[in-house]
Amino acid sequence: MNPIFSALPTTIFETMSRLAREHQAVNLGQGFPDDPGPEDVRRKAAEAVVAGWNQYPPMMGLPELRQATATHFRHWQGLELDPEAEVMITSGATEAIAGALMAIVSPGDEVVLFEPMYDAYLPLVRRAGGIPKFVTLTPPHFGLSEEALAKAFSPKTKAVLFNNPLNPTATNFSAADLDLLASFCIRHDAVAICDDVWEHVVFDGHRHKPLMSRPGMRERTVKISSAGKIFSLTGWKVGMVMAAPELMRVLAKAHQYITFTTPPNLQAAVAYGLGKDDAYFEGMRTDFQRSRDRFAGGLSDLGFSVLPSAGTYFLNVDIAPLGQGDDVAFCQRLVVEHGVAAIPVSAFYAEGAVRNVVRFCFAKHDATLDKALERLAALR
Amino acid sequence: MNPIFSALPTTIFETMSRLAREHQAVNLGQGFPDDPGPEDVRRKAAEAVVAGWNQYPPMMGLPELRQATATHFRHWQGLELDPEAEVMITSGATEAIAGALMAIVSPGDEVVLFEPMYDAYLPLVRRAGGIPKFVTLTPPHFGLSEEALAKAFSPKTKAVLFNNPLNPTATNFSAADLDLLASFCIRHDAVAICDDVWEHVVFDGHRHKPLMSRPGMRERTVKISSAGKIFSLTGWKVGMVMAAPELMRVLAKAHQYITFTTPPNLQAAVAYGLGKDDAYFEGMRTDFQRSRDRFAGGLSDLGFSVLPSAGTYFLNVDIAPLGQGDDVAFCQRLVVEHGVAAIPVSAFYAEGAVRNVVRFCFAKHDATLDKALERLAALR
Ligand SMILES: CSCCC(=O)C(=O)O
Ligand SMILES: CSCCC(=O)C(=O)O
Repeated sequence: MNPIFSALPTTIFETMSRLAREHQAVNLGQGFPDDPGPEDVRRKAAEAVVAGWNQYPPMMGLPELRQATATHFRHWQGLELDPEAEVMITSGATEAIAGALMAIVSPGDEVVLFEPMYDAYLPLVRRAGGIPKFVTLTPPHFGLSEEALAKAFSPKTKAVLFNNPLNPTATNFSAADLDLLASFCIRHDAVAICDDVWEHVVFDGHRHKPLMSRPGMRERTVKISSAGKIFSLTGWKVGMVMAAPELMRVLAKAHQYITFTTPPNLQAAVAYGLGKDDAYFEGMRTDFQRSRDRFAGGLSDLGFSVLPSAGTYFLNVDIAPLGQGDDVAFCQRLVVEHGVAAIPVSAFYAEGAVRNVVRFCFAKHDATLDKALERLAALR
Repeated sequence: MNPIFSALPTTIFETMSRLAREHQAVNLGQGFPDDPGPEDVRRKAAEAVVAGWNQYPPMMGLPELRQATATHFRHWQGLELDPEAEVMITSGATEAIAGALMAIVSPGDEVVLFEPMYDAYLPLVRRAGGIPKFVTLTPPHFGLSEEALAKAFSPKTKAVLFNNPLNPTATNFSAADLDLLASFCIRHDAVAICDDVWEHVVFDGHRHKPLMSRPGMRERTVKISSAGKIFSLTGWKVGMVMAAPELMRVLAKAHQYITFTTPPNLQAAVAYGLGKDDAYFEGMRTDFQRSRDRFAGGLSDLGFSVLPSAGTYFLNVDIAPLGQGDDVAFCQRLVVEHGVAAIPVSAFYAEGAVRNVVRFCFAKHDATLDKALERLAALR
């Protein structure tokens, strides 16, 4: 067996969801809303699967979804994308990330990663033959610094894999951070693989700023978006990839060999959904922000030390003030004894893990959050 | 860019489907039925997407689909599979093949491939770091031989990637062939990655015999099946992977990092479909066989030299008797000038390509086949 994969444990998200089921816990671990998602979008998918085409769609995606993607991101992020040459549909953002690494990285190339990071990044970089170079982001701002980037970049840097907003820290990177990162990518002729799946889930009146639109980045960025995250339908696994034609030609090969296509009925429904008016997307943000505030407020009232959340479905709690220094053991007790599943943030580090931070998913109904708060009260 | 992917042309299937659209050709190239697929199965998917769960399903697949898979293959192929430990659901068989190679192969390992082969195999083996070793199968039987296998296997053989029934030759390997291959796998301690996606599409009263059930193979086989092929819903991209627990643990990692999950509504519908009675599956075979016979008969009547088809959606024509020796140029003319898309079989070879065989997909309505035959008449 290939040792890169065989040595790894099951993903923490799956483990915690399983424990949550076994212990009838409130599951605030794995990031998914407990809302069923927009009914009209789901009805579109139902119509398309009954009355529409169920054979292979074009490998690059349904034309209407590629067009809808271009239109959507012109409107929301000012990007000008040719739907024919610069947009591709994948079976989720995970496939897009795996494919981008397989397409771009050759054995021995260095890839810059930012810790804490999503748990799939490192094994994928390694399996692509890449050599990871870490930039460790530190609380409370989790921002970038010239010094840290200078240490991570080298003449061998081929790519960076950058998640913004960042899961699990709930950071929305500043324009200054993005310009700093862009300057390093340009200087080192590196491709930026941007995991932008949380782009619509940004709070307090802020907007996501795509790295792709910073000067000099348009031709060297792979932007990856997720219909699952945009529409709170995380099981759908419909991803959108955007890149300049030259990059796209190679990304398309990876997609061709990794999954080939994505179910056409879900693609049709996402195409419809991306055309929703601004009020829909603003409403989604407002709703998530309300949930964040309800849960953060409840936690603070209980005396928990809550870290700021500028985006994503997540907020973090510092467990050091509780006298806790082992986030894994803490989360294990939390789910088994107290009936609340959360994610230990140390799972997002390859080295030098922070051990005192625990992540909660607040993308849940009020009743779910309140039940979790009730159970957490026992901890204080 | 990684040169393994960047050097490759677009897949012939996509290219031909595009040409077919541009030239209003009858598309007998890419393998998909023009039937909409079973309505009850599609209705199940519709119900599940409206009323069911649309967030992440368990990473390994919906429990009911894993159970239905085990039950289905016990019934049809006599396999005893533990649905918890030995069955996994992927986003299509392509993901399963890509994942198996990523999980099993390490750089420098040799992988035995059988030519002609599906066009994704070789780039995936190479990208996994594997060194391809080819066994070339030759007309008219395309069978295995001790001599050819002995040349391809070595102490470095890690795996074989074996497609049965074989696309594009439409061969259903004999029990003797399977036992011969099994003996080599066992002797060289190699894993057999079995692309069994055509297992239900076998004609003339024969049955698919899985390599997994040959003596000594149970623990060293990864069996890959496809709901898209079983139900003529090729766009659904729901694959089923079967393997002993030790292998499955590593395959699961690859799945986790490559797509993570597969849309739950499609999984629920496939679980329902796999439970259909024997008459359904027999009926499907009978229908495809009737289409094969109609098209083969029509071609023979026109004087074409038709090769035998024991399974798959395909039959092949020898174009040498037409005085043609360049299948690619022939297919190009066929689609542009005569309005029929087919696939040049040389696209399935890495070396020593046969240049006089052209593949047609007959999984089409009678009217579609008849229209193609009419157009092909002009060629004689
Ligand atoms: C694919 S499971 C993980 C979902 C997620 O984004 C998270 O919980 O961080
Ligand atoms: C994934 S497109 C190819 C479909 C197919 O199996 C074939 O035409 O050979």
